[in-house]
Amino acid sequence: MGGEVRVEDYRLEPGMTVADLARALGRSGGFQAVNLARGVEILSSMWGEMGVKTFLAFTANLVATGLRGVLAQVLELGMFDVLVTTAGTIDHDLIRCWGSYRPGSFYADDAELHRRGVARLGNVFVPISEFTTLEEKIQPFLSSAYGEKRTWGCAELVGRMGEELACPGSILRAAAEAGVPVYVPGITDGAVGNQLWLFRESHPDFQVDVLRDQVELAELVFGAEKTGALILGGGIAKHHTIGWNMFKGGLDYAVYVTTAAEYDGSLSGARDREAVSWGKISEGAARVTVVGDATIVTPLLLGAALEEVGWRRACGPGGRGGGRRDPRTGPPQGSATPAVKAHGVEIRDHRNIRS
Amino acid sequence: MGGEVRVEDYRLEPGMTVADLARALGRSGGFQAVNLARGVEILSSMWGEMGVKTFLAFTANLVATGLRGVLAQVLELGMFDVLVTTAGTIDHDLIRCWGSYRPGSFYADDAELHRRGVARLGNVFVPISEFTTLEEKIQPFLSSAYGEKRTWGCAELVGRMGEELACPGSILRAAAEAGVPVYVPGITDGAVGNQLWLFRESHPDFQVDVLRDQVELAELVFGAEKTGALILGGGIAKHHTIGWNMFKGGLDYAVYVTTAAEYDGSLSGARDREAVSWGKISEGAARVTVVGDATIVTPLLLGAALEEVGWRRACGPGGRGGGRRDPRTGPPQGSATPAVKAHGVEIRDHRNIRS
Amino acid sequence: MGGEVRVEDYRLEPGMTVADLARALGRSGGFQAVNLARGVEILSSMWGEMGVKTFLAFTANLVATGLRGVLAQVLELGMFDVLVTTAGTIDHDLIRCWGSYRPGSFYADDAELHRRGVARLGNVFVPISEFTTLEEKIQPFLSSAYGEKRTWGCAELVGRMGEELACPGSILRAAAEAGVPVYVPGITDGAVGNQLWLFRESHPDFQVDVLRDQVELAELVFGAEKTGALILGGGIAKHHTIGWNMFKGGLDYAVYVTTAAEYDGSLSGARDREAVSWGKISEGAARVTVVGDATIVTPLLLGAALEEVGWRRACGPGGRGGGRRDPRTGPPQGSATPAVKAHGVEIRDHRNIRS
Amino acid sequence: MGGEVRVEDYRLEPGMTVADLARALGRSGGFQAVNLARGVEILSSMWGEMGVKTFLAFTANLVATGLRGVLAQVLELGMFDVLVTTAGTIDHDLIRCWGSYRPGSFYADDAELHRRGVARLGNVFVPISEFTTLEEKIQPFLSSAYGEKRTWGCAELVGRMGEELACPGSILRAAAEAGVPVYVPGITDGAVGNQLWLFRESHPDFQVDVLRDQVELAELVFGAEKTGALILGGGIAKHHTIGWNMFKGGLDYAVYVTTAAEYDGSLSGARDREAVSWGKISEGAARVTVVGDATIVTPLLLGAALEEVGWRRACGPGGRGGGRRDPRTGPPQGSATPAVKAHGVEIRDHRNIRS
Repeated sequence: MGGEVRVEDYRLEPGMTVADLARALGRSGGFQAVNLARGVEILSSMWGEMGVKTFLAFTANLVATGLRGVLAQVLELGMFDVLVTTAGTIDHDLIRCWGSYRPGSFYADDAELHRRGVARLGNVFVPISEFTTLEEKIQPFLSSAYGEKRTWGCAELVGRMGEELACPGSILRAAAEAGVPVYVPGITDGAVGNQLWLFRESHPDFQVDVLRDQVELAELVFGAEKTGALILGGGIAKHHTIGWNMFKGGLDYAVYVTTAAEYDGSLSGARDREAVSWGKISEGAARVTVVGDATIVTPLLLGAALEEVGWRRACGPGGRGGGRRDPRTGPPQGSATPAVKAHGVEIRDHRNIRS
Repeated sequence: MGGEVRVEDYRLEPGMTVADLARALGRSGGFQAVNLARGVEILSSMWGEMGVKTFLAFTANLVATGLRGVLAQVLELGMFDVLVTTAGTIDHDLIRCWGSYRPGSFYADDAELHRRGVARLGNVFVPISEFTTLEEKIQPFLSSAYGEKRTWGCAELVGRMGEELACPGSILRAAAEAGVPVYVPGITDGAVGNQLWLFRESHPDFQVDVLRDQVELAELVFGAEKTGALILGGGIAKHHTIGWNMFKGGLDYAVYVTTAAEYDGSLSGARDREAVSWGKISEGAARVTVVGDATIVTPLLLGAALEEVGWRRACGPGGRGGGRRDPRTGPPQGSATPAVKAHGVEIRDHRNIRS
Repeated sequence: MGGEVRVEDYRLEPGMTVADLARALGRSGGFQAVNLARGVEILSSMWGEMGVKTFLAFTANLVATGLRGVLAQVLELGMFDVLVTTAGTIDHDLIRCWGSYRPGSFYADDAELHRRGVARLGNVFVPISEFTTLEEKIQPFLSSAYGEKRTWGCAELVGRMGEELACPGSILRAAAEAGVPVYVPGITDGAVGNQLWLFRESHPDFQVDVLRDQVELAELVFGAEKTGALILGGGIAKHHTIGWNMFKGGLDYAVYVTTAAEYDGSLSGARDREAVSWGKISEGAARVTVVGDATIVTPLLLGAALEEVGWRRACGPGGRGGGRRDPRTGPPQGSATPAVKAHGVEIRDHRNIRS
Repeated sequence: MGGEVRVEDYRLEPGMTVADLARALGRSGGFQAVNLARGVEILSSMWGEMGVKTFLAFTANLVATGLRGVLAQVLELGMFDVLVTTAGTIDHDLIRCWGSYRPGSFYADDAELHRRGVARLGNVFVPISEFTTLEEKIQPFLSSAYGEKRTWGCAELVGRMGEELACPGSILRAAAEAGVPVYVPGITDGAVGNQLWLFRESHPDFQVDVLRDQVELAELVFGAEKTGALILGGGIAKHHTIGWNMFKGGLDYAVYVTTAAEYDGSLSGARDREAVSWGKISEGAARVTVVGDATIVTPLLLGAALEEVGWRRACGPGGRGGGRRDPRTGPPQGSATPAVKAHGVEIRDHRNIRS
């Protein structure tokens, strides 16, 4: 039972790199250390294989921390083809372009913070005044977009934001430059969502077309031979990623990073193996769940995996996927393409319900 | 420090009711028992006060369990005015009208389940074949709706489903009958969401208008003197509920039930006090977080609170809110009403970002 | 897959008892609700079968809350034959005989509490001054015990405390009156432990004989045909209980209540199934883990199970076990009895390591 | 609010070291990343100050993984003066000297494992057969020790094991060589504890003197000007460490690493700030809790902190504490030294109860 592999003690060394440590953890035999090392292997394999469509999913809270730099970096490097996230990502990413967040405390007096105009996000302090700036910047942007056309897909609109509004360091900017579409399935659920509503109040024919994003995602997954995902946290970003991958027979590579518990039957806490029963991860997939705070686990995972593959994907950015079209453009809107007709049959076998 | 109140030992008694137990826990002085008892007090106060607009928010996984009966029941009783949930709630609620879920195990072989057509949701087994039934029922429904008009708000469409499709025991049915709008901010993220996309493929001018829901929610919160919420679980249902209540100065009553941890800065794990800093819960609110699995905590909370208020709200269902209009109808779509213009100012002070 | 059993919706009812609720949860099909109901079934079966030696294990923090009353009550009712706990149980149980604990808050200013002489135990406030009272009461007790003999077993000494020092409501008192031995494998790790050390400073030949407790426990488990345990929380109380039961082939009934996570390989978070691999729970045992705060889960479990068995064990207290000797007396100290010799062989097959 | 410090985005870099990463996390502003970086700072300060008595506490499960190598390494380097742990540490440390543990899975079939003689510890597989070897090695060791004297302190006995039995890589060996006493307050609660009982069966006058360890610990803390602790996990090892440090006015440096939750009032989940109210950590202490699996967090913490201090403590091993006596020898057994008499008064102000 277990063959030749043994739990091996390891030692720390002067100048030990993140990649060295991940390799040592891989031999250490136990608990989450081995899951972390397995995650490094899976990301490395995923990046080392040509033609894998790669998804990055995360929750917005991470964008309020310095991990935003790493998330932007891996997009710039071309390591991911699709981004799925929550509405707050847009908010934090934009606001941090012109206003600073501060290290704070979980135990601050929240009523006093409120009176001082500081909002608390865990142990990060967010200046409320910058939301006024957000309004001042977003409304003209929306006017300009509206001048162009009345109805926008979400990823289409967010992509435009990344092109026009974002600053150096921005995730939206990095995504736009790398040609990575940003899917935000709950687009209305945040400050920018509120701005969309506010704009609608004075422009009744302004429409956000959430089904257009579904058409694009369908194109993405039906066109993919293999897919993989790194999913940080739970909720709608996680579910949307695995849900859509069900339509191609499940993810071939999946790394979950979570703090959520499994015992309550939540989607957030569900481990990678549960997704196999739904066909959201394929039976033969390389998959793992690493339990831990993403602000610690993610840089280890990504740092070590980038080292393993020499900081580039198979064929490098641009060449990946062999002629991949700009996924933000998507299929012709509303057209029932032959491929989509085929899905009409296929969909009876692979369904999406869990959320 | 602490005055006269003491930790009091309590004893179990033959025939002890849920309400008896909650009262004993209230005197027991420690850990989550006192938070549960505090939750009972808050719900009782909320229901005992006239004119409080009450929100119920929960995640879809609960609808896969027998708790669905309790959730439908409190809607039938008129205890809540607004429902906010995730896309999977629609899926599970509908499918369970014609197909049975089974008690399962967290430790089943997921690959084998997949081959047998069973999907696992925690320790609940879901028959995949019923998703075909879902498609067979939803597509004609959408055709009929489309025949009426091309563009639907989400709550509007879900409300119509509750009227036309649902069965006895259904949450959507109970909501429809009680005139409770059902907001699903991530409407596309589930099986019914997939059906919307599928319908769109052959009906390119079919639109789901997510901003219409925002207009309705704005009407609801700006029109409310006081608001309260029972929030089961985290994610987008939780955030959307507290986010919109920011616009009226925060919830006056708030009970969170969660298993999520605070330490990772997640919205799901954020305690009620964090929302005070954002103005999503008011500084003077009655508020508590009860940490525990909702399938255990919710029936205790609701069962005991219903007993405390004699199973009815102040003024009873129907009379509550004094002439409340059907919130599903919402304000005239797209009109910039005077009330909304006032919000245009107000919005500079209370912003919504966290997700 | 799953046969005829279905997830059944349930409804709350006026005057619903704790036992009614537990039965409804048992049909509800999902998450921890079904585990709680399973726990009720297991305790009921355990109490309904004659000759089962029953263990109650818990951590000391619970004794700082009103749950202490319930824990004393089930001992008084004769539902358990053996108690295993941590050192703090002695401390809290004694101090609460003469001083009051207060409901407090998790978010108090701990430095200020310290300056005011209040110690915080979660959200319970403990008056530090009462530890002086503890010293004033324990030192004379130890002098008296020392006058009798120099060397005491832990359970022997704690049993004497229960007889001489405790007040109405005390767990130690209830245990003493019910003839239930109290094993505290980490006896020195608390305030009373400090008192033992203090007494030793002036009485160098005073000995606490921890191996005597092991001899007694060996007698208990080797003499038991069947055993069962309700284990609240983790750590040394949990491990000592399952560890000793390994020597009779594992517990036949096991209910764990825990908040600890499994993913870190901790003993506290280990689920019941892990103990099967060690032989600490038998392969055919009735067993379950209920995840949740013990201050909520325990009264539901015990309240419903007591109703199921009519508030008494098979044969009632006293008659149980058919002539069970006082387990505090134990086997003749230090004697190598034939039974023990047999263990010398047996022990090669069942080993105890995990902690 | 917050001054000049800002949340700073960071980037991964080729060849990034563990220390580089920890520094980046320190500027990243949020969640557990900043707590980890704070932990590195605290350990560095603690090691950089002369005359600080340093405690290392951990739970036994870690010794079943490759982290054992790191734990032994920091003892060899002289970074800690005292070790406090659970009984299983002795078991795993010894067994791994002659038998291999294997990487396993959390989801193995535990009944089948049991039949194959494999015990599961999280996702580590332990060969049960090696417990026979343990018995074969420990019984002669105990005979030899018994030949020398009848009564042994726990740390004294464990220290002797480290000298005589241990192998290269052993924690007990490393502790013995570094002159670090190993305190195991629940000595009987494990496989070696069972061996003590077995030996006692045939040697009725063999005694394990747990109060002797208390006398030694009293000497250690009363003789220390400043103390600090790195505490991995909860339970009795954690509590014993902070409990004894209460007697000197609390730890001056404290780093907790835990996965346990605070909401249940458990000692394991209690954050560092709770200990301030008890005086177990001083009001002015440098302290932090890092939430995460110790197999990931510990090598980051220790690896980065060792780099910060150049892999040596102030004055280096041996010179630390300026003439520190062998703590395993302890004060003359049972003597009421002047220092101890003074404690007789002191103890009225600083009490230990929590466990």
